[in-house]
Amino acid sequence: MYKAPVQDIAFTLNHVAGLAEAVESGRLGDLGSDLVDAILEEAGRFAGNEMAPLGEIGDRQGARLTDGEVKTPDGWAELYRHWREGGWNGLTAPEAFGGQNLPHMLNVAALEMWNSASMAFALAPTLTMGAIEALVAHGSDALKDKYLARMVSGEWTGTMNLTEPHAGSDLGVLKTRAERNGDGTYRIFGQKIFITWGEHDAADNIIHLVLARLPDAPAGTRGISLFLVPKLLVNDDGSLGERNDVYCHSIEHKLGIHGSPTCTMIYGDGKFGAEKGAIGWLIGEENKGLACMFTMMNNARLAVGMQGVAIAEAATQKAIAYANERTQGKAPGWSGSGMSPIIEHPDIARTLVTMKALTQGARAICYACAHAIDMSHHTEGTDARFWSERAALLTPIAKAFATDVGVDVASLGIQVHGGMGFIEETGAARYLRDARIAPIYEGTNGIQAIDLVVRKLPLSSGEQVRGFIGELRDIAERVATSNNAAFGETGDRLKAALAALETATTWLLEAQAEGRVAEALAGATPYQRLFGLVLNGCYLAKGALAPVEDGNADKRVALCRFMAENLLAETSALKDRVVSGAPSLEAARAVLA
Amino acid sequence: MYKAPVQDIAFTLNHVAGLAEAVESGRLGDLGSDLVDAILEEAGRFAGNEMAPLGEIGDRQGARLTDGEVKTPDGWAELYRHWREGGWNGLTAPEAFGGQNLPHMLNVAALEMWNSASMAFALAPTLTMGAIEALVAHGSDALKDKYLARMVSGEWTGTMNLTEPHAGSDLGVLKTRAERNGDGTYRIFGQKIFITWGEHDAADNIIHLVLARLPDAPAGTRGISLFLVPKLLVNDDGSLGERNDVYCHSIEHKLGIHGSPTCTMIYGDGKFGAEKGAIGWLIGEENKGLACMFTMMNNARLAVGMQGVAIAEAATQKAIAYANERTQGKAPGWSGSGMSPIIEHPDIARTLVTMKALTQGARAICYACAHAIDMSHHTEGTDARFWSERAALLTPIAKAFATDVGVDVASLGIQVHGGMGFIEETGAARYLRDARIAPIYEGTNGIQAIDLVVRKLPLSSGEQVRGFIGELRDIAERVATSNNAAFGETGDRLKAALAALETATTWLLEAQAEGRVAEALAGATPYQRLFGLVLNGCYLAKGALAPVEDGNADKRVALCRFMAENLLAETSALKDRVVSGAPSLEAARAVLA
Repeated sequence: MYKAPVQDIAFTLNHVAGLAEAVESGRLGDLGSDLVDAILEEAGRFAGNEMAPLGEIGDRQGARLTDGEVKTPDGWAELYRHWREGGWNGLTAPEAFGGQNLPHMLNVAALEMWNSASMAFALAPTLTMGAIEALVAHGSDALKDKYLARMVSGEWTGTMNLTEPHAGSDLGVLKTRAERNGDGTYRIFGQKIFITWGEHDAADNIIHLVLARLPDAPAGTRGISLFLVPKLLVNDDGSLGERNDVYCHSIEHKLGIHGSPTCTMIYGDGKFGAEKGAIGWLIGEENKGLACMFTMMNNARLAVGMQGVAIAEAATQKAIAYANERTQGKAPGWSGSGMSPIIEHPDIARTLVTMKALTQGARAICYACAHAIDMSHHTEGTDARFWSERAALLTPIAKAFATDVGVDVASLGIQVHGGMGFIEETGAARYLRDARIAPIYEGTNGIQAIDLVVRKLPLSSGEQVRGFIGELRDIAERVATSNNAAFGETGDRLKAALAALETATTWLLEAQAEGRVAEALAGATPYQRLFGLVLNGCYLAKGALAPVEDGNADKRVALCRFMAENLLAETSALKDRVVSGAPSLEAARAVLA
Repeated sequence: MYKAPVQDIAFTLNHVAGLAEAVESGRLGDLGSDLVDAILEEAGRFAGNEMAPLGEIGDRQGARLTDGEVKTPDGWAELYRHWREGGWNGLTAPEAFGGQNLPHMLNVAALEMWNSASMAFALAPTLTMGAIEALVAHGSDALKDKYLARMVSGEWTGTMNLTEPHAGSDLGVLKTRAERNGDGTYRIFGQKIFITWGEHDAADNIIHLVLARLPDAPAGTRGISLFLVPKLLVNDDGSLGERNDVYCHSIEHKLGIHGSPTCTMIYGDGKFGAEKGAIGWLIGEENKGLACMFTMMNNARLAVGMQGVAIAEAATQKAIAYANERTQGKAPGWSGSGMSPIIEHPDIARTLVTMKALTQGARAICYACAHAIDMSHHTEGTDARFWSERAALLTPIAKAFATDVGVDVASLGIQVHGGMGFIEETGAARYLRDARIAPIYEGTNGIQAIDLVVRKLPLSSGEQVRGFIGELRDIAERVATSNNAAFGETGDRLKAALAALETATTWLLEAQAEGRVAEALAGATPYQRLFGLVLNGCYLAKGALAPVEDGNADKRVALCRFMAENLLAETSALKDRVVSGAPSLEAARAVLA
């Protein structure tokens, strides 16, 4: 069973991602390290003891739809109540609405633990937090007063309604329409698909944020508005009123995250008898809905990245436990009696250490992204712009690299289990099934790669990415000049990987400057992976260099060295694909005809 | 829906794997190319039209166990009857028992098609063919006369009973016991798990081949004997008699291949009232059972490799169809009206071409392995030894590389489908679920890697592998000296990849010669992948060089170039892991504690 790796999490937050420094500098207000530790400990306890046991039940039962009502798995409604009563839903929300105004870094660390325990369950608050964020940033005071406190407390959950059958990655073509009522409210008509936790029995109300198009809206993405559409209308005194004209038509039968209801939502069908049209309230300005949605989408992308980290962590724990327990054959050098635990076999050890290294690296990347977000909120002027760009640059890598790691590590975890890994009761297969959605939703990893190459590399004319690579070079240099022989060839390997990243970055910036966009896009995914691997290596090195005497320093150096000497050579191949892969792809398109 | 790629299959068989040459030389008897074509066409028709539609039903329903009886999915028993009436079960079996004595290459090609249509279904005959093979090679005349004809016809199916709860990769510790009855028969007692198609309703009888240990047997793998244990005893006149003391206790709830019953079999429990002990007949000699089992295991490994090819093919077809149909956004250079089909986006095109290249390469590797098996049967003396070694060398690569390709390509296929890929009804997820077992069973891919490094590289003192690399070099040289500019840098890329393979091979042979076994084993899996990628590239090149004017020559060159310029750079990183990855792994073992 999952046990939260509180020590690894705290170390990475503090000494790799930058929390300790931010706390010491006083930039995060009166947040002290004691409070950080207490929060992580308690989140870990809740995730391990209360949430994880229900994760498996949720997978087996799944969410069930009957007559438009969704029943969550046994025990989940009560689990959700316990969880929100613990105050976990409002960690980063404003104090004015009952939140704790804590840094994103802490919330992201907590999200990791919820997702390790049950990704399907953790999706509910993940969506609510996104909705809160959009409302805080763009909602009118009236909307905030009416909805925020109960969303922050978790009494009401939130959803994001973007996708339609023909509009997924390309939201410009969505058809859901909104009509003005003349009294400041709107009526919404249309169908939305893939709505996570769109209907369920764990909260009193559900607050849908819905993208729709006004009758006179311009075509494309500039004609999309964002609306708040509650499941139950809320009276002026805050009590719950009539059912709004929105319902769940069906839920999907999915590969994984079975406990999370993925709903097709119908707006404005007149199902409940009243006048047709789901009543909605505008968030932000008309036709500016996509910008409002992007506010929450960036953080949602990081939250999905955390799902990758979380599954990788849980899968690694499970595989290590099994490999210690299962005996089979005799490993070279095994001197014990009988068969050796399979962890002694070099091939299994290599697999497990690989899982460890990728998990720990993906964690550091995601936490560093959260740190950049926090810093952008706690600084001003050029500093704020710098950190905001850093967060923007890290977001697609955090989302894509960490979710790919989630899938890869979950699959390796199955392999370590041998035949037992294929049996559902073992639980290893569930991790792969759950993990597989994360590279897809909140923008497929291909979309993230396009975003990285087209929008993020050119930030500040390329100075943001170049400056970042410079910082990473400093880490490599510190390893190279350290006197610790246990680093082996780490310094040289990091430098070679950074050189590959720099070459690929320059090539992509030039290709775009010269209008060779298709060529640049052909290499976007290999580039994204290249960047992720380099960060993985550099962040492990940063942790290994940190002068923290907690008894794990040698292990950190050893893991970093394994990463550098076993996993970083791939960066050269990826660079090669970026700078020379496009012509052969163009020629090979013919084979798809 | 799956459509058998008969043209690709025939081309690869004939011009890459060597079938055309073998036919022309008369080595395969009176087999002509017309018969080959007719067989492939008809198999493709059956797989696409009759089998594929039932594959999906099988996944949804799964096999069901009631009171020890297994019911296969609706329509499967009838499908099986049609299939065996087509004569497909006996393609390679001896004519004396009703078989057609055709080359393995043809059977392997047919297996690909059955597995693309329904891997769960195709497992039944795959196991039967293995049992036939063991019986032909090691059974007494009496056993052959009694069982073979009806196994070759498919009226009776076969199973392999190896695994026990504590004995998977390490069969030396199995506990199932056999007692001599004194009349030449034995009584078997024990429990076997993960028995594929161990019980079902699609055939009249099931012939179990069971590994067990005699009371006076030496410990370990030298004390294992192989027994034939029919579900229903067979009377001397060939009619079916009493129920033998063996039954299916339970079936597994698995990630995939739901239609295939994976059974726990209980031998000798006295369930049917008669004297306890399942009556069995010895195959081969006492205590020589493992050698008999290995006869069938080698071909079974190749058959599992075909599952990887088959799933990759089916997943690629599905993804290409979806990417042509689904429109989203505007690809660079798109001049059509509205959104472009997603296949136009460079990232999607790159993904699909990668799927194509790996599928085609894995196919060629498996067919080449089948060719080596055929040649070893149709030659004598040193030639036979040469081909037998070639088959031995290729088998672990074919099994491991192709099954990894199956998983990777199925996962890429999901990604191409976006959110729809995660929905079970789409069918893309099923391919990943089914494919995921193939790297595990018939010896995990880690075990294959150990076999490759420890037993196969040293064949003929390393001359077999060196000679093979020399043959591959000739292909690279022919590309490099061809005047076809469409090859781009293919020649140089192939040479570099071959240099990496040679360096890694030499390193592994030396490390073992010097007793550094743990170091060699640490790099076994990266080496296996390296070898697979090199073969993938070289075989695509061999096909691209073939002077066949079928209108696809340019496509073959383009696909080969994509492989060389996009996917072969990884070989350098893999070589690096082999020759320098072990020390850091040894140091990093501490992180697993």
